Amino acid sequence: MAPPTTRSVLSIDLKKKPWEQNPPLHNRWHPDIPHVAVVNTGEVFRVEMVDWTGGAIRDDDSPLDVKSLDLSTVHYLSGPIRILDNDGIPAKPGDLLAVEICNLGPLPGDEWGFTATFDRENGGGFLTDHFPCATKAIWYFQGIYAHSPQIPGVRFPGLTHPGIIGTAPSMELLNIWNKRERDIQENGVGSFKLCEVLHTRPLANLPSTKSCLLGKIEKGSSEWEKIAKEAARTIPGRENGGNCDIKNLSRGAKVYLPVFVEGANLSTGDMHFSQGDGEVSFCGAIEMSGFLELKCEIIRGGMKEYLTPMGPTPLHVNPIFEIGPVEPRFSEWLVFEGISVDESGRQHYLDATVAYKRAVLNAIDYISKFGYSKEQVYLLLSCIPCEGRISGIVDAPNAVATLAIPTAIFDQDIRPKKNIVPIGPRLVRKPDVFKCTYDGNLPLTRNPSATS
Amino acid sequence: MAPPTTRSVLSIDLKKKPWEQNPPLHNRWHPDIPHVAVVNTGEVFRVEMVDWTGGAIRDDDSPLDVKSLDLSTVHYLSGPIRILDNDGIPAKPGDLLAVEICNLGPLPGDEWGFTATFDRENGGGFLTDHFPCATKAIWYFQGIYAHSPQIPGVRFPGLTHPGIIGTAPSMELLNIWNKRERDIQENGVGSFKLCEVLHTRPLANLPSTKSCLLGKIEKGSSEWEKIAKEAARTIPGRENGGNCDIKNLSRGAKVYLPVFVEGANLSTGDMHFSQGDGEVSFCGAIEMSGFLELKCEIIRGGMKEYLTPMGPTPLHVNPIFEIGPVEPRFSEWLVFEGISVDESGRQHYLDATVAYKRAVLNAIDYISKFGYSKEQVYLLLSCIPCEGRISGIVDAPNAVATLAIPTAIFDQDIRPKKNIVPIGPRLVRKPDVFKCTYDGNLPLTRNPSATS
Amino acid sequence: MAPPTTRSVLSIDLKKKPWEQNPPLHNRWHPDIPHVAVVNTGEVFRVEMVDWTGGAIRDDDSPLDVKSLDLSTVHYLSGPIRILDNDGIPAKPGDLLAVEICNLGPLPGDEWGFTATFDRENGGGFLTDHFPCATKAIWYFQGIYAHSPQIPGVRFPGLTHPGIIGTAPSMELLNIWNKRERDIQENGVGSFKLCEVLHTRPLANLPSTKSCLLGKIEKGSSEWEKIAKEAARTIPGRENGGNCDIKNLSRGAKVYLPVFVEGANLSTGDMHFSQGDGEVSFCGAIEMSGFLELKCEIIRGGMKEYLTPMGPTPLHVNPIFEIGPVEPRFSEWLVFEGISVDESGRQHYLDATVAYKRAVLNAIDYISKFGYSKEQVYLLLSCIPCEGRISGIVDAPNAVATLAIPTAIFDQDIRPKKNIVPIGPRLVRKPDVFKCTYDGNLPLTRNPSATS
Amino acid sequence: MAPPTTRSVLSIDLKKKPWEQNPPLHNRWHPDIPHVAVVNTGEVFRVEMVDWTGGAIRDDDSPLDVKSLDLSTVHYLSGPIRILDNDGIPAKPGDLLAVEICNLGPLPGDEWGFTATFDRENGGGFLTDHFPCATKAIWYFQGIYAHSPQIPGVRFPGLTHPGIIGTAPSMELLNIWNKRERDIQENGVGSFKLCEVLHTRPLANLPSTKSCLLGKIEKGSSEWEKIAKEAARTIPGRENGGNCDIKNLSRGAKVYLPVFVEGANLSTGDMHFSQGDGEVSFCGAIEMSGFLELKCEIIRGGMKEYLTPMGPTPLHVNPIFEIGPVEPRFSEWLVFEGISVDESGRQHYLDATVAYKRAVLNAIDYISKFGYSKEQVYLLLSCIPCEGRISGIVDAPNAVATLAIPTAIFDQDIRPKKNIVPIGPRLVRKPDVFKCTYDGNLPLTRNPSATS
Repeated sequence: MAPPTTRSVLSIDLKKKPWEQNPPLHNRWHPDIPHVAVVNTGEVFRVEMVDWTGGAIRDDDSPLDVKSLDLSTVHYLSGPIRILDNDGIPAKPGDLLAVEICNLGPLPGDEWGFTATFDRENGGGFLTDHFPCATKAIWYFQGIYAHSPQIPGVRFPGLTHPGIIGTAPSMELLNIWNKRERDIQENGVGSFKLCEVLHTRPLANLPSTKSCLLGKIEKGSSEWEKIAKEAARTIPGRENGGNCDIKNLSRGAKVYLPVFVEGANLSTGDMHFSQGDGEVSFCGAIEMSGFLELKCEIIRGGMKEYLTPMGPTPLHVNPIFEIGPVEPRFSEWLVFEGISVDESGRQHYLDATVAYKRAVLNAIDYISKFGYSKEQVYLLLSCIPCEGRISGIVDAPNAVATLAIPTAIFDQDIRPKKNIVPIGPRLVRKPDVFKCTYDGNLPLTRNPSATS
Repeated sequence: MAPPTTRSVLSIDLKKKPWEQNPPLHNRWHPDIPHVAVVNTGEVFRVEMVDWTGGAIRDDDSPLDVKSLDLSTVHYLSGPIRILDNDGIPAKPGDLLAVEICNLGPLPGDEWGFTATFDRENGGGFLTDHFPCATKAIWYFQGIYAHSPQIPGVRFPGLTHPGIIGTAPSMELLNIWNKRERDIQENGVGSFKLCEVLHTRPLANLPSTKSCLLGKIEKGSSEWEKIAKEAARTIPGRENGGNCDIKNLSRGAKVYLPVFVEGANLSTGDMHFSQGDGEVSFCGAIEMSGFLELKCEIIRGGMKEYLTPMGPTPLHVNPIFEIGPVEPRFSEWLVFEGISVDESGRQHYLDATVAYKRAVLNAIDYISKFGYSKEQVYLLLSCIPCEGRISGIVDAPNAVATLAIPTAIFDQDIRPKKNIVPIGPRLVRKPDVFKCTYDGNLPLTRNPSATS
Repeated sequence: MAPPTTRSVLSIDLKKKPWEQNPPLHNRWHPDIPHVAVVNTGEVFRVEMVDWTGGAIRDDDSPLDVKSLDLSTVHYLSGPIRILDNDGIPAKPGDLLAVEICNLGPLPGDEWGFTATFDRENGGGFLTDHFPCATKAIWYFQGIYAHSPQIPGVRFPGLTHPGIIGTAPSMELLNIWNKRERDIQENGVGSFKLCEVLHTRPLANLPSTKSCLLGKIEKGSSEWEKIAKEAARTIPGRENGGNCDIKNLSRGAKVYLPVFVEGANLSTGDMHFSQGDGEVSFCGAIEMSGFLELKCEIIRGGMKEYLTPMGPTPLHVNPIFEIGPVEPRFSEWLVFEGISVDESGRQHYLDATVAYKRAVLNAIDYISKFGYSKEQVYLLLSCIPCEGRISGIVDAPNAVATLAIPTAIFDQDIRPKKNIVPIGPRLVRKPDVFKCTYDGNLPLTRNPSATS
Repeated sequence: MAPPTTRSVLSIDLKKKPWEQNPPLHNRWHPDIPHVAVVNTGEVFRVEMVDWTGGAIRDDDSPLDVKSLDLSTVHYLSGPIRILDNDGIPAKPGDLLAVEICNLGPLPGDEWGFTATFDRENGGGFLTDHFPCATKAIWYFQGIYAHSPQIPGVRFPGLTHPGIIGTAPSMELLNIWNKRERDIQENGVGSFKLCEVLHTRPLANLPSTKSCLLGKIEKGSSEWEKIAKEAARTIPGRENGGNCDIKNLSRGAKVYLPVFVEGANLSTGDMHFSQGDGEVSFCGAIEMSGFLELKCEIIRGGMKEYLTPMGPTPLHVNPIFEIGPVEPRFSEWLVFEGISVDESGRQHYLDATVAYKRAVLNAIDYISKFGYSKEQVYLLLSCIPCEGRISGIVDAPNAVATLAIPTAIFDQDIRPKKNIVPIGPRLVRKPDVFKCTYDGNLPLTRNPSATS
């Protein structure tokens, strides 16, 4: 009897650039990106990944690398991985692929990560009208804990997870994506043209050949040209899973992914040491390189059995997830509420996005009273294990959203006190890190329309 | 030394109608509704309340009472309660009122509740386009557990909480509410007139003298006429707390409410035995009569110290909450995901409401595979302790929302299985209860615009 | 359809003495104590109980009532309750009685309790050689929380439970109890006569007609005389459940009790607002009056099916328990360890009792550094929800036991600190309460033999 | 800014024998074993360790390696490690060494472990009179989960921890150990000579030069001879920590160890993938090789400040622990109770060891009804994350102990059922593994005296 070993199927050389890795990485979704590994159901296999930017962000105090990041390069994914059952028969369209996350973590020797906000002209974020500048915090890991020199007084155990895990789309599904995303980009939502207001930020991230990386497909070849023009960007989560950013997909979690192409062609990346619900600053988790140990099962015909299409085709489905039994345990939470009235005082109709924005803004202002700059708190709320809830979605006209923050991550008691003591000045260290570098010329109108 | 006793300050006679109670109830927010009780900080006091409809819903199989409910009557609240400190000085505008929920529960002898969906023509709900009919499920309580004859095979411990807790608004704040809500009702949101599409459902619930109950103010008096025309409806949560429907406000939780009028004038009601995040069916929690044991503190000047206005006036604030340490403990959750693409396949821009709707629809369809009608599951998701999360709100164009369901509440294993066994037909009992009674003539277009 | 109501089957009049209650109480175990109520399986019924002393302890600062308590009177139990199935057939010997605790709590208007240590000459306790005096702390309840004027700076949510729940023994089982307990009382353990050392404390609590209360059996009758001489004391837990003091038997827990007599004859009492594992001070929980809402099922033939005798007869069994899903949630615990070396430095062989004693003594000394007297901490460790664990029981010669204390119950941080700050003197209030009143003349030798 | 890296200070070569490792290992406690590594406070460092037997147990079906294991060789420890503060000043006697467990796990490529029971003639165990044979189960790890081919139908997440972590004793403390352990070995406990009954099992494990390994001290040298005769065995936990087998010392836990020699001389080993409270089968955890990532702080003078001696010298102290926030979360537990009446029906006096033994026996018999052999369950209870509690320790004559088992680890519902269905025969696979191989000639009297 020999112990089953965890087979390493995709590894990363941290000294190489993303496009130099072997097997090669990819940063688009397309059915014709060839698989780079094959695994069987039941075996535990190891996949390594670079951080989502492929090493573009440095471990230093300057956010200039964030400000100038070329977003057409992200996210660098490991895969695709072809899945076979024990008889060697591949997963087939219509099957459900159950992927269990047996273990995961940072790459040894690379135990650090970053949280950042993008410049309003380059990426932006949930609160970009309030915080238009690029900022950056570095996090160091000590086992399960993270701490940051830029945000002193905070330490917490990570609920580590991959931000992206998904299967390859079929050509039919890819066409659906491209059509609907192009539609919103060109036409906006309803008769209200969001793009008029938001001209510096795209409504959708459409296919682009720029910086396109397609694994084994040789750059510049005719095949590459064709695929690069069609392949979907990795920014949004979609029917295939993808960038779902569900912070609880940690050790022991299970993802049930629909299979759209033969072999399933599983890809994953964008590892997060920790993330708050919403990942509000966009580059919002603690982004890092890392590894996953996975185990797959194929549920034959499972899509039809378990997933009901919510749209015009059988492809309009979403994955299902099971949360694992090992998560950091917090006993006390401070909860901030938001309603769907925006910062100008304007009423919105059951809009959970506006309500959540209010909750996040309330939390930022509150916590900043304890010695932090608002930029620091915005970064914090992106990456600590805070919970963003939709509390009420029916009591017209106000949606109610809440943001719950585990109080134990701070080295001081942040709850309201009856006897208000003047809060001692906590030195906001390295203030230049958080100095605004935004040089755009858009008025910071906080136009409420921009948020929904 | 005599033990401090819990003083009962407001009690309910279950044999009487809401308008016959003594002290009288109220169902509107207004600064001039006189307080009916006075309590001191530090003392534990007991408040009883009728269910939100004041007994209009019967413990039987017929949803006709739900279908014909007069929504202008809700919610019946107990209070206002004037809060004094131990020197007899009342809470003052600008203070923060900390209300601790020491204990709570159903009223003895009235251990049952109901969950319902309204008719599309009368109230509707989050999924009213999918489920336009009035339906009703009755729940019986056995201590901490609830079960329903209409939805067999489900049993769970309640996370009991008041749906409504709030302070009286000042006249200035009331004017803000009325203006902004009238604005949306008359003008819709942005240039897109929602009301054109949604003509049977109001965008806001504006003041109405119909069924208005104002406590000690005599009905029909000139004072009553004036107040009734101005007083805000209790449907939405607002700056004063109100109908926030935060399901974790249970034993040991603490609410920090802004004070807008002298004495704070605390009111509460709409007790829920249990509720799911979002309370999706509108009458969605397990609605019941009940009692609260509360204790108050006044944090003098706390609004300025702890709440930052997010709007044009110092009144644009939201309460803060602390969650208590006693909640049902579930180890396994099945999670459904939704993205901001609606059921017609149309792309929306980072719209958490659309994403959550998709997650809820996905969950309904999935669970209905285990022997339930979709109407049963819709009711279930309103009232079980499920968690609705905003997972990603930045990855344009898709917001990602999730709905997590504790699997232990079912008497069968609802997780996906590798070897699909044909699910035995669970008798959907009392199907007539869930027979559609909708007789409106609106086309069920599932117009995506109607949801955001 | 009428809602099922919780039927009150046994109620308490707090103004009456234990022996004046109607239906009458009992304080012994015997098969011939007649049942005072009958319930059916499936129905939820309410049972009220006096505190274990029947009101002998007063809500004041003086421990004199504890010092002089007549221990022959305890515990006052409510019952016996005869259990019938829905066909009217009683539970029978060999069945298993599943008792679900649907709800429980203090009696309304009597929301207080006490924790005490007995005088070494009258009751003693786990650490009576260290703390020979009677002491007392009063606890007041504010909903789920308890606090004590005698032990300031501590507040915690109760994990409320009945200390005693059990079925009536058969005559055969009763004879086994009386024989084995008389044997240890007369002969000690092994060749080592514990009684020589411990002459002031009995090794067992044998039947005694003194203060014997037998429910409907008239005191002084010949039947009373016979039963009183045979009936087992309620002090120890035994095969029938009884005084098992399992602190997690709270809301939602289920007890599977063996049935020894027709009808099961269920009795319960000794309600605890909260208790630490071990209940080390003997009168160690927060003792109170209270109520239980219970629901029973009969598992016919369940003893044979589920309980395996561990002894010479089929009666040598123990109940099984299920813990409910609602318990206070603590995230941080400070853990004290003890090994089986006693305070004189003497080595014991894998003795978990000695090891646990050391762990408790370590915890008392440690916490007393934070401004408490050791007597206060001893009382605390009896009643806070601390966890007493057997960590290692095989590594000869040392058993290792641990005591884990939730740090959140204190209003100060009790963890060890790198930079030791002089701990400010917390005023130990009401020191006279904890002044030693012991006037025995035994040398306080801390004889290690006395502990095992 | 360069990211701080985790420095590897002690590594293991899995292809080498324990005595061939470099730096060398040790298997005794003694102040004169030289340190093999030096670390500074604040740095995160990595320590690797062999399994406690140093690879003597094979990954196969035969328990013969367990039966013949030379127990004089265990436990192989990594260290000692000398601890300096950031000024280079070593930890000193009287200090407290705070060791935080930042991370831990199996050694990559060696993801398996074993649980075993020893032969009664060679090691025995808590229930050796009931289970006198050597048995063995192999466990394979898939990330956080373990499963065993010998015990099918069970799978659980590990609460991984080091069984042994401790500082070197001073000569004075070592002398105390040797004296008291020799005393019990020679004289038994009290006037009752346990050794008369237990002649095949030692009461203590006294120093022995056999198989003694002392790190850098050359075997056979005069120094080696001297130390080997004095050095304490590693079997029991003692004042220096050592083999405390506290199953919750996992990621994020902190151990406060007393310092007895300059530099503290920290050693660790005996990694457990998972263990049940009590580690009842002796070789009872899932034993494995592994790694720890640790971080130390020195609390100068902390022994006096935080540890109170419970014995005749200032050295009679015990470590303190903090439990980390990341543990597997189980919502349902089945609890077995034991009282201090032994299997012969004999009464013991408040003996928690006897009570726990009964609880364990009850659990073994109960679970064996679900298709397992008792030997399989005995192994299970040693290694699953079950909780062993001291529930009542004062209600003379019965101590009450409980054993709580998380039901979710089984692939079937093991709770008692009203409608007893005949339990399908689960094939007890590989029965020869669990075939008794005991060939001693001791009568299996289950002599109760043997247990306490």
